[in-house]
Amino acid sequence: MRVPMTIADFLDRAEFGFANSPGVIDEPVQPATPVPTSTYGRLGERVRAWQAGFDALGVGEGERVAVVSQNSARLLELLFAVPMSGRIAVPVNFRLRSEEIEYVMRQSGASVVLVDPEVEQATAGVTAKHRFVLGERTETELMRFGVEPRPWSNPDEDATATINYTSGTTARPKGVQLTHRNIWVNGLTFGLHTRAWERDVYLHTLPMFHCNGWGMPYVMAGLGVKQVVLRKVDGAEILRRVDEHGVTLMCGAPAVWNAVLDAAAGWDGAIPGRDRVRIVCAGAPPPSRTIQRVEEELGWEFTQIYGLTETSPVLTFNRTRPEDAALPAEERARKLSRAGVPALGVRLRVADSGEVLARSNVVLDGYWEKPEETAAVLEDGWFHTGDGGSIDAADGHLTISDRKKDVIITGGENVSSIEVEDTIFSHPGVAEVAVIGVPDTKWGETIKALVVRAPGAEVDEAEIIAHCKAHMAGYKAPTSVEFRDAIPRTATGKIQKFKLREPYWEGRDREVN
Amino acid sequence: MRVPMTIADFLDRAEFGFANSPGVIDEPVQPATPVPTSTYGRLGERVRAWQAGFDALGVGEGERVAVVSQNSARLLELLFAVPMSGRIAVPVNFRLRSEEIEYVMRQSGASVVLVDPEVEQATAGVTAKHRFVLGERTETELMRFGVEPRPWSNPDEDATATINYTSGTTARPKGVQLTHRNIWVNGLTFGLHTRAWERDVYLHTLPMFHCNGWGMPYVMAGLGVKQVVLRKVDGAEILRRVDEHGVTLMCGAPAVWNAVLDAAAGWDGAIPGRDRVRIVCAGAPPPSRTIQRVEEELGWEFTQIYGLTETSPVLTFNRTRPEDAALPAEERARKLSRAGVPALGVRLRVADSGEVLARSNVVLDGYWEKPEETAAVLEDGWFHTGDGGSIDAADGHLTISDRKKDVIITGGENVSSIEVEDTIFSHPGVAEVAVIGVPDTKWGETIKALVVRAPGAEVDEAEIIAHCKAHMAGYKAPTSVEFRDAIPRTATGKIQKFKLREPYWEGRDREVN
Repeated sequence: MRVPMTIADFLDRAEFGFANSPGVIDEPVQPATPVPTSTYGRLGERVRAWQAGFDALGVGEGERVAVVSQNSARLLELLFAVPMSGRIAVPVNFRLRSEEIEYVMRQSGASVVLVDPEVEQATAGVTAKHRFVLGERTETELMRFGVEPRPWSNPDEDATATINYTSGTTARPKGVQLTHRNIWVNGLTFGLHTRAWERDVYLHTLPMFHCNGWGMPYVMAGLGVKQVVLRKVDGAEILRRVDEHGVTLMCGAPAVWNAVLDAAAGWDGAIPGRDRVRIVCAGAPPPSRTIQRVEEELGWEFTQIYGLTETSPVLTFNRTRPEDAALPAEERARKLSRAGVPALGVRLRVADSGEVLARSNVVLDGYWEKPEETAAVLEDGWFHTGDGGSIDAADGHLTISDRKKDVIITGGENVSSIEVEDTIFSHPGVAEVAVIGVPDTKWGETIKALVVRAPGAEVDEAEIIAHCKAHMAGYKAPTSVEFRDAIPRTATGKIQKFKLREPYWEGRDREVN
Repeated sequence: MRVPMTIADFLDRAEFGFANSPGVIDEPVQPATPVPTSTYGRLGERVRAWQAGFDALGVGEGERVAVVSQNSARLLELLFAVPMSGRIAVPVNFRLRSEEIEYVMRQSGASVVLVDPEVEQATAGVTAKHRFVLGERTETELMRFGVEPRPWSNPDEDATATINYTSGTTARPKGVQLTHRNIWVNGLTFGLHTRAWERDVYLHTLPMFHCNGWGMPYVMAGLGVKQVVLRKVDGAEILRRVDEHGVTLMCGAPAVWNAVLDAAAGWDGAIPGRDRVRIVCAGAPPPSRTIQRVEEELGWEFTQIYGLTETSPVLTFNRTRPEDAALPAEERARKLSRAGVPALGVRLRVADSGEVLARSNVVLDGYWEKPEETAAVLEDGWFHTGDGGSIDAADGHLTISDRKKDVIITGGENVSSIEVEDTIFSHPGVAEVAVIGVPDTKWGETIKALVVRAPGAEVDEAEIIAHCKAHMAGYKAPTSVEFRDAIPRTATGKIQKFKLREPYWEGRDREVN
């Protein structure tokens, strides 16, 4: 018997087996109110109320519904409600500037946009056929409680469930189409390799817009795990939540764990969750010293994964091997800073060029309305990660040695250096610019701009940074600017980024963190 | 990207990520020798040697290869080698009589049969185009080491991977066709719900011919888990292996755990694996007293599952819920004797008739060359389990009240023979019990208990009946008790109720009223 593998599998099991168990614990946001502490039974009712609302609004199957929101119970509900009814969810990074979000709206052709009250003002220019502010108002205006929604006419595991926009290497973000099957397989393998179960308590330290929270909202529901919403990353607040809710599992970029380590230094009393919490880190492996501190100062189990939005995202998984358990902490931490072994069902190989290639059911269906880019990234039946790496033949662990030259990962956010360069170049005082990632203890990498002034121009560092913040999300702005007389180029006029990076990364074994 | 979900995913990950880790630990059999202690890298080489051997023999894709064997590394290898090359494996119960195996050979049309040396004589009449005895002889005669096998021409997740014959309650066994997708999904969900990981050590207490060892050989390989072969169930030997290999995970029918409990009573010293081992029990929920003893006397975590060969097999899973952890042991054990909540991706419902129905990707493709039986069991798009049950709306747990045929209807009341058996078994003087309905002029059917006394016990009929009436509604108590020396079971340990009933129903046109 073949049954379509869809997102419904996760919520249906939550409702069937965990109807009266704690489901999603929201947190308040001003001026709106949180969703009351909810069971999985209640989550199912609310999901159907959203769906019936979209039915009443005339939003058809296949239409795109965009959500611009911090982590919230409502965003989580929409990650189920939209795709389970055959519509397509477009979760958008709430830190993007209004013009950037407007581009996503246009490119995805979304007919509905829902925005969090906290970004209501900032997104005032973001419109669609239907626009709603999340909170009690949507419950009155849009949701239809107790009305049975129209079922998805033809549940199909190959249908697109979500479109997640990457910052990409080119100036314009691309929409990554993930199918129900992509998300299903990612959810099962991620749950399998993290050993998640109903006794876990999951804290959303990762933004849910980010590749659908790596699929965790789905598989946590499917396993009946209590999910605690966290709207903003704050180290001390994370420690308090771990204590208050008995949290056992979290995901996040290195910056999250650095924030927790900072907070732990000033924490009064025993660190909560010692020998109980396990964390999953991705984005870029942190320095092994950070890993060692997580294990020693927090007593939390550290696991590293590697993947991209295009891979749902989990490609590899790295947890201390049984045979390595007795190694010195430093050596263990060093091994944990590798990307890891492929998840079940993932094939990896390294091309002659050094690029890491992947084949798996977690690989994207395509980029939304970009057939050429899709064909290029899936050439020869393999997904081209754009990252350089190597595989240790002895234990099958992948190490990423060189990231796609133009992407900087800072605080877990991917930033296209080309986009930053374009923005800086639009300043009349700039003649030439190159943007690179340089190491940073807190953020993994941080953004540095090398600038050649236009003749006679007197532009300074503060002005460049302000210019960037006026035209892009703040996290994309450089944190430092250096002025040069020239930027060295190859004979054919290409900037060799790795040469520019070299002096900053000296003494490290790779040029990315 | 769509990639076929096939059995290759499990072995490929084992070879990629665990090439040098312990894979399969065989045990000796006379007169043959065991496969030397093997890594997963070596397992991969041996699998390819089998495949190249079948190529040389001219065995084509889609042809059936039968294996009649006790648990052994070679049987495990063939469970990978045959389906991964597009052929179909037919694992056969080695305890069947020769004529029964001959029927399986004919019905499946197998062109190859491989038999374990221990059953070489008993299966002398079992022939096919090619017959081999497993052991060193096959390594010379059949296997081709170092020869690259012909790859499967068109890997297809919907292709049949194995045909497993059910012992069935009807006269002739039926061949259950499981596809690669069936086995893939069962493996992932079983691994997920048992929280299996690379630090586990799995002991094969379950026959691998039995629904491919419930899929465990596959998912254990995929997770890099060391697998220890056990040829014969023996309680003391299981305890020794748990000790010797640091076993953490086992599967089996209640009889296995009874054997271990018996051995534990005479075990010298601390029980191995206390607070480390978890066991998975299926076949029929054991009496709750057995569950309680497993937890108290062995200190092993008990989980109950429910399924059938037709469902790959895992449909439901029952482990103590976090909210039940503090319950009294007896109450916890009672709850654990239920079938459990559906595995991820499984939908269950109970038909008006009381029959349990299931929909899932683990449900069989069909019965081999039996279109009518296939259509009947999959009527209306649901798999008909043939078992009667009920679902607790509060926590979604399924309870199997009876094999449909084993419901006794007496005086208009439905009585579950399992419930009566459970009650009788709770009497300390009882070693084994089977409860059946026998014809009765007044009540239609009346309840009869067949009892094997515990060693040294002197319990009599009146005492059994009084014990039942003290613990259940009066109508559920047997009206007669017969004492036996043993209760006959099938090769897989099942009591065949229809055989027990036969003598009482002679000359009637059906076996229930």
